[in-house]
Amino acid sequence: MKRFFIIAASLLWGAALFAQQALIPGTGIVSPEINADNTVTFRYYNPKAVTVEVSGDFLPTERITFTMDGRERSWDAPGRAALTEQNGLWTYTSAPLEGELYSYTLYVDGQKMMDPSNIYQNRDIATWTNIFTLSAKKGDKGWYYQVNDVPHGNVSKVWYDSPALGMQRRMTVYTPAEYETNKKTKYPVLYLLHGSGGDEDAWSDLGRAAQILDNLIAEGKAEPMILVMPNGVYFNQAAPGVAVNMFQPTMANSRSQSTVEIEDSFPDIIKYIESNYRVKKAKNSRAVAGLSMGGRQSAALSRKYPAMFGYVGMFSGVVPPEVDEATGKDKVLDAVFAAKPELYWIACGKTDGVMVNSLLLNDYCEAQGHPVTFYESEGGHIWRNWREYLTIFAQLIFK
Amino acid sequence: MKRFFIIAASLLWGAALFAQQALIPGTGIVSPEINADNTVTFRYYNPKAVTVEVSGDFLPTERITFTMDGRERSWDAPGRAALTEQNGLWTYTSAPLEGELYSYTLYVDGQKMMDPSNIYQNRDIATWTNIFTLSAKKGDKGWYYQVNDVPHGNVSKVWYDSPALGMQRRMTVYTPAEYETNKKTKYPVLYLLHGSGGDEDAWSDLGRAAQILDNLIAEGKAEPMILVMPNGVYFNQAAPGVAVNMFQPTMANSRSQSTVEIEDSFPDIIKYIESNYRVKKAKNSRAVAGLSMGGRQSAALSRKYPAMFGYVGMFSGVVPPEVDEATGKDKVLDAVFAAKPELYWIACGKTDGVMVNSLLLNDYCEAQGHPVTFYESEGGHIWRNWREYLTIFAQLIFK
Repeated sequence: MKRFFIIAASLLWGAALFAQQALIPGTGIVSPEINADNTVTFRYYNPKAVTVEVSGDFLPTERITFTMDGRERSWDAPGRAALTEQNGLWTYTSAPLEGELYSYTLYVDGQKMMDPSNIYQNRDIATWTNIFTLSAKKGDKGWYYQVNDVPHGNVSKVWYDSPALGMQRRMTVYTPAEYETNKKTKYPVLYLLHGSGGDEDAWSDLGRAAQILDNLIAEGKAEPMILVMPNGVYFNQAAPGVAVNMFQPTMANSRSQSTVEIEDSFPDIIKYIESNYRVKKAKNSRAVAGLSMGGRQSAALSRKYPAMFGYVGMFSGVVPPEVDEATGKDKVLDAVFAAKPELYWIACGKTDGVMVNSLLLNDYCEAQGHPVTFYESEGGHIWRNWREYLTIFAQLIFK
Repeated sequence: MKRFFIIAASLLWGAALFAQQALIPGTGIVSPEINADNTVTFRYYNPKAVTVEVSGDFLPTERITFTMDGRERSWDAPGRAALTEQNGLWTYTSAPLEGELYSYTLYVDGQKMMDPSNIYQNRDIATWTNIFTLSAKKGDKGWYYQVNDVPHGNVSKVWYDSPALGMQRRMTVYTPAEYETNKKTKYPVLYLLHGSGGDEDAWSDLGRAAQILDNLIAEGKAEPMILVMPNGVYFNQAAPGVAVNMFQPTMANSRSQSTVEIEDSFPDIIKYIESNYRVKKAKNSRAVAGLSMGGRQSAALSRKYPAMFGYVGMFSGVVPPEVDEATGKDKVLDAVFAAKPELYWIACGKTDGVMVNSLLLNDYCEAQGHPVTFYESEGGHIWRNWREYLTIFAQLIFK
């Protein structure tokens, strides 16, 4: 009897699994394939297609000019490269790439589509892309974005009550690995804010924030700290798909402009964190930083609560100086510096449209003798820069 | 000066955001649209397409027969429906649907693709599908899968050390809402296991485990409990994309069959949970359940450690009785019942290939006088059933 049962078990088991989960795995094609020389080969099978292109952030950008609201504007679009076809199999091999996390999609006869052979995908606001990570050697930027053989902190999705916004809201909290064992130690906190249309998952997913902190802490380059990543869209409880049914995130709908903003509700966040985690509560144990809209919010938070944060990081987003015509002064900004922040850090890419405002802020501060640090990188308004800015900023704080 | 700065800020801000994140949002088309009568309309624009179909789990399944390893097999494939075209816009409206979480994809000229107008997607093993949730009224199955206005527990991704598997591993832990406030209360634990090719994100994503428990606890239908959702693939540290670069999950590569299995490493998981959380440590405060491979693992865990779990749930997966030819007995299984579990619960869908083994197990138990509960549902080896089984099972335990 035993033999019969085992055979029946394994056959039926296999058939059931094979079948009903509809999981005939993949396409049988390896794409992308990371080659030994760090070039990357993309493959796509479709004998009927007329053109197949790959568009990704590893290709040179293309400057595109367009008119909006009667004004000419331009931006750096991700580059495209044509795949070539043989027997229905389309291929393209990139130049050698540095260790990084890359995003791409395919265009088949002009229609955007995911690479059907690559299950790794990520959503940024309303745009899905395939992703791949090129393994990086220690010291490369990309090394910090990987899960390496170091102690790992925990990442939690927690719910806090926000009386200011009248709802329960979800946020992401990273605690460093040692938090679980050093049960009496208190930690500093970096509040880390996403961009327009983003959500509380953005920094932990595309931002690789947990990996960056794990790796920096393990190397002794950053202090063990807690990261708090709230949802910065005032009317959302949580990321799309968690709480708000079929909500379509866009860049345009993140700020109320009239009613309560995230800055008004920030004390609710701090109250939850300081009640539920072992944290240091002094100003110099609190930092705030963010990308794009989150950079603007970080600037606004420091203006609204100059005694709250010892460190302020603005990644590709600032509040430009609001200068009184009579005095030539921005009194609110001057008050931020009167409170003597340990670090007021502006980062921006050379081709980023936010550069103008970043420079306005920097120049005003320099003219007033306010200590400000300006970090200029290559590139524009992209995640590659924001991961790098976090990697740098995290090494500068709480020391 | 002030006026100039603000104008410059808002214009550049808008242009930069519009441009560099490449976030021209969506297609301008609403798809799917949930209509007032609970029908759902799908829309897709493509004037060049010849055929467009939608394939989803809200359509009647189609029985497909195929030959594998020289044997004829069959399974219930998700049904398909044709969209009809007018001026390049393809549409299809479903029958009225019950409140549920549904999955679908499009087929354009035979090529599978995501609905470009729906940003909501989920990966199950190696298969991406679009998803949508039909709002359900209280009492509907689907109501339990939504974020309702009830207290919410926290969901954490934590790392534990597994000496048995020789690696740090990631798992998902749900703590009930009151865990944060009742600081002295200890809680029972349900260990909840995913299927072949799945990972530690499966139950919290497609399984909606946190929402199910939040809602059941708020209604007083389930005891406040901790859910522990480990990664059941013996060679993986974590879900694809977190730790293992470009790993391709399949159903076939989840079990070692020869070296150490998840069951051998389970004490590592329990040790971490019982060291780091406020949990009750008695047998009757521990439950184990799982779907498919996880159901088999739950059965195997109860066989291996009969004194460990007071409740065992097998969702579409079991270890069939291993009966000695001479005695007609499965001594190991008999020992499970000698330890008097509070509940030994088998659930399976009528058209599930695992039904044969589930019945073998049920019949053996009944013949031996072992108390067993068998729950038979409609349908097959699908998430709709597993969400329902969890909803039922969670109400039966720790009472």
